[in-house]
Amino acid sequence: MKSHDTAVRVMLDAARDQGAETVWDRHAKQDPRCGFGETGLCCRHCSQGPCRINPFGEDPQKGVCGADADTMVARGLVRAIAAGCASHSGHAKHLAHALHKWAKGHSDHYPVKDEAKLKAVAGRMGISGEGMETRQLAGQLADLALKQFAEGEAPLAWAFNHLTAGRREALERLGAVPTGIENTIAEMLHRTHMGVDADPVNLLIGGIACAVADYAGSHMATDLSDILFGTPQPVASRANLGVMDAGKVNIALHGHNPVLSDLLVRAALEMEGEAGEAGAAGINLMGVCCTGNEILMRHGVPSLTHSISQELPIFTGALDAMVVDYQCVYPSLVAAASCAHTRVITTMGMAKISGAVHIEFTEENARESAQKIIREAIGAFKSRKGRAVSIPEISSEVTAGFSVEAIVGALSKLDPADPLKPLIDNIVGGNIQGVVLVAGCNNVKVPQDENFLGLAKELLARDVLVLATGCGAGAYARHGFLTPGAAEKYAGPGLKAVLSAVGEANGLGGPLPPVLHIGSCVDNSRAVDIAVAVANRLGVDTDKLPVAASAPEYKTEKAVSIGTYAVAFGLPVHLGVVPPVLGSQTVAGLLTAGVKELLGGWFIVEPDPLKAAEAIFGALQERRRGLGLASRPW
Amino acid sequence: MKSHDTAVRVMLDAARDQGAETVWDRHAKQDPRCGFGETGLCCRHCSQGPCRINPFGEDPQKGVCGADADTMVARGLVRAIAAGCASHSGHAKHLAHALHKWAKGHSDHYPVKDEAKLKAVAGRMGISGEGMETRQLAGQLADLALKQFAEGEAPLAWAFNHLTAGRREALERLGAVPTGIENTIAEMLHRTHMGVDADPVNLLIGGIACAVADYAGSHMATDLSDILFGTPQPVASRANLGVMDAGKVNIALHGHNPVLSDLLVRAALEMEGEAGEAGAAGINLMGVCCTGNEILMRHGVPSLTHSISQELPIFTGALDAMVVDYQCVYPSLVAAASCAHTRVITTMGMAKISGAVHIEFTEENARESAQKIIREAIGAFKSRKGRAVSIPEISSEVTAGFSVEAIVGALSKLDPADPLKPLIDNIVGGNIQGVVLVAGCNNVKVPQDENFLGLAKELLARDVLVLATGCGAGAYARHGFLTPGAAEKYAGPGLKAVLSAVGEANGLGGPLPPVLHIGSCVDNSRAVDIAVAVANRLGVDTDKLPVAASAPEYKTEKAVSIGTYAVAFGLPVHLGVVPPVLGSQTVAGLLTAGVKELLGGWFIVEPDPLKAAEAIFGALQERRRGLGLASRPW
Repeated sequence: MKSHDTAVRVMLDAARDQGAETVWDRHAKQDPRCGFGETGLCCRHCSQGPCRINPFGEDPQKGVCGADADTMVARGLVRAIAAGCASHSGHAKHLAHALHKWAKGHSDHYPVKDEAKLKAVAGRMGISGEGMETRQLAGQLADLALKQFAEGEAPLAWAFNHLTAGRREALERLGAVPTGIENTIAEMLHRTHMGVDADPVNLLIGGIACAVADYAGSHMATDLSDILFGTPQPVASRANLGVMDAGKVNIALHGHNPVLSDLLVRAALEMEGEAGEAGAAGINLMGVCCTGNEILMRHGVPSLTHSISQELPIFTGALDAMVVDYQCVYPSLVAAASCAHTRVITTMGMAKISGAVHIEFTEENARESAQKIIREAIGAFKSRKGRAVSIPEISSEVTAGFSVEAIVGALSKLDPADPLKPLIDNIVGGNIQGVVLVAGCNNVKVPQDENFLGLAKELLARDVLVLATGCGAGAYARHGFLTPGAAEKYAGPGLKAVLSAVGEANGLGGPLPPVLHIGSCVDNSRAVDIAVAVANRLGVDTDKLPVAASAPEYKTEKAVSIGTYAVAFGLPVHLGVVPPVLGSQTVAGLLTAGVKELLGGWFIVEPDPLKAAEAIFGALQERRRGLGLASRPW
Repeated sequence: MKSHDTAVRVMLDAARDQGAETVWDRHAKQDPRCGFGETGLCCRHCSQGPCRINPFGEDPQKGVCGADADTMVARGLVRAIAAGCASHSGHAKHLAHALHKWAKGHSDHYPVKDEAKLKAVAGRMGISGEGMETRQLAGQLADLALKQFAEGEAPLAWAFNHLTAGRREALERLGAVPTGIENTIAEMLHRTHMGVDADPVNLLIGGIACAVADYAGSHMATDLSDILFGTPQPVASRANLGVMDAGKVNIALHGHNPVLSDLLVRAALEMEGEAGEAGAAGINLMGVCCTGNEILMRHGVPSLTHSISQELPIFTGALDAMVVDYQCVYPSLVAAASCAHTRVITTMGMAKISGAVHIEFTEENARESAQKIIREAIGAFKSRKGRAVSIPEISSEVTAGFSVEAIVGALSKLDPADPLKPLIDNIVGGNIQGVVLVAGCNNVKVPQDENFLGLAKELLARDVLVLATGCGAGAYARHGFLTPGAAEKYAGPGLKAVLSAVGEANGLGGPLPPVLHIGSCVDNSRAVDIAVAVANRLGVDTDKLPVAASAPEYKTEKAVSIGTYAVAFGLPVHLGVVPPVLGSQTVAGLLTAGVKELLGGWFIVEPDPLKAAEAIFGALQERRRGLGLASRPW
């Protein structure tokens, strides 16, 4: 079984028939994997290597420099965290530049769309904004945002201002306090250079600090995206390959950053006429991965597919352009499109793919480039004439757009004076046993969506509310979990009652979806915000809440970083794919147990979704008991 | 043959007799190396891997994401450059903080020692300093230095202000212009995250920008070290294990940063009395690796040993403390000291080793910590009583301390009005055929010093002046190349005449050494300064000069970064160890040929020192012909 997604399975047959290679083929060719790499026992950090350590206790037991398994595994792990942090914060900085350029008059394309959010974020960051015009306030916030990347003297405000007081203290006690994003990243690279930090505990503490910096970048990305493009509100759309339309110019927007995709949404509206002249019934934008989440949440743009199935839309013959920004974009897209008319269009100077069409997109030339990109797709549409097209007619209804503001807004219909009260009351009363954020990627090592689906079914049935982001949210979107009907089908009685009550109060004509799509990967920050708000209301720290996180099919270094900040904030964090740490009992033990003493959170590594659900549910129950709340057996 | 250093060979026998493991043993146990890692065809940047590519053109040909050999090799290489840059710039920033803290009154321990250098550096960086007190000027320069780490709007000044106009243009044309150090590092991590930059050429251009940022950090480290601790002037000392003294408290200072070691030199002077009370004849400080170079250059502290032989002093039984800061410090030191009385003392919060004594050293507590460290060593000396001691009586004379200022000072004795003229005249006239900077580490894969010695002998005999830094300078120090006698022994007639003339003019009673020790690894910036000065005098760019660089036994990611900036500045750069790029003909071809078209420099990869010397000499002759100067056959 390669995927639980029927549309994907249909397209895998099509790919096979077309003689095309997919990620599953390349995965099969990579087996058997190198056991040293899989366990983290391989090091290439200097040219005396590559070194490896024999996990069976025989020679070699140490790298050439003397690094043992603990050092090697810890070094590899924290370098991954640094790369994840660099990715999220690069994304955030891109947004900060866009806002900054508008505020300073260097670009017209990125005006503030959500003034209320601008004021709210500025306020949280200590800028009063009293009497300021929007542009001035935006300029001050953008300046402050850009300063977060450099070393400062105080704890990194974009992280620390969004945590409980107890959490700030816990991180300070541990010595895991970043003072800037990019200096922390650079320090982790320095520390993992040959002959620098060789103490696994010290390295992991550094890694935790870097993950906290990652959270700052993620939170900033969420905040600035909302300010620039609007804070998401519930929106209906569809997801899966059936959202393609053979008669239209089909353009997939793939990657992560709305700086590109939100502009393309605007440009596409203006260019319907051009598409019509080319014989198309219009322009059909669709999203892939987190770029897809961004434009789904804000514009209702349908989601095409996610993560490991990103190559497959090409094999329908109907995809005119795959437009990408950065992160999680398989370079294989070019090969996949080599026998099709599909244009793979890269747009960022720092993220090119050999063989792709490159149309450079900057904040200054955004409109012009967006038009050029769409024109390229229209050109491809014209060249599609006469070619076979086969789109699987499979897609699911989706309700997305659950920002914190949207959730609070929905709850306020139950209690306008104290919107969090209904949520807290239901947690306390047991209708909601806990909240689990399910995030992260698909990973070709896992039958696509298997862990997402298995986990959610088990948790929902036990009255656990699920929040979802990233490709996890995508999986739930494609499988119909983001619908009122899913509440009926999957939610336990307590949860269903709550979802129905909120739905009714909001005039939805049915319950809320049992899985709330809260956004892209950077939007995991939204889940932390909810946890922090609830913790502050209850007067406890976040490590006391019946809240957990899971990345059941994780793949990227970004996910390692996200998981680490979630642990740092006191959450039990499930991983459904084993990270490369098994080579060190010390590191594995610290991550799965030792860190709990220090920060309250810990990693649960469990590939089986049923067992994972049981472990997560157990952790929630432990937390409930800690708060003196009634607990339930599995 | 493990080493060409007799003292090392003696100690290897001692280590064997003591049943101790050394880096050579661990090296042997690591063979055979993983061919995928050696060729750069292994990727662990996401958890769908580890992926590998079959270099023999059979499956697997692509990683799971579709990254091919070119992408994989380029990604690995630029991540290494980023790590090297992070290390040098972390070192630089540490110095900037020390200066800043003194300037702002937060620490008394780091006053400006060299006001002339402060003014010179400030001037080059655009600060006039007119009418400013030292502290104020130091504060302004430190502020400017710290700002270099963050993204700016202009090309990174600490790099660009030290290059020719032509070089700045060449880098701008290529798009390899960093605007800050740490943002460039972070960007390279982002770009090498799964699904971001997959174009090997684009990645390499990014890597070049990052290497230019590395140069900025290196230059800053040199400048600030000179300001804080004095600009080196020629100084006599000794090098090799024979510099230990059984009757004294033997303390080795190892790592890279004079922030620690320079303070220890001061503290040791004050604590001779305490050592005497413990029955010692005094305190004997010695240097290892680049920390050794820093205190050799400025204080004449003898060099104990370098790089791969760093464990061996412990087996003499006479080493009381190995005090380390960071970089190139083998964690194996702790195991090596486990049966000895030697204390391995780590000092930096970000660079610990499990099992070592940790005495935290900060700019604020510098004096107190330095005393504590020396007291720990004195304690170890006491516990040494009755233990067997065997120090090989092998050491060489050394003249080091050839900063740019020192070289110009020596040349000015020949031509006070125009000190560069004698150098240029001799290059033009052919007494000096060219200048080669020999830098970098030892690597256990090469019999220690073999390539350094072989290369220098061949080049010197052909009238090529050699500048040396880092462990390369250490190799020449231990083998007697940093002496007037070596000029007699190794230099060709033209070179000897020049060295003798300079020596005579300076009243040295003999020639200058034919290999000029210009400092530590960050001091490769001194060599660039000389090249830039000569280029500007000749009115050509640095890529036209008969100047080359070599890292014949390179080991670290820092060396990869240094080599890349040397190529970026137009130099032919020899590597005697094959970097992990052979898996991509595209990348290997770009580095060894393609880049020459763009920047003038290129990599020469040649493990055999004789062939390497021939290739380097050939490159110098090509440059001579380009300038219309007489050339010679090999």
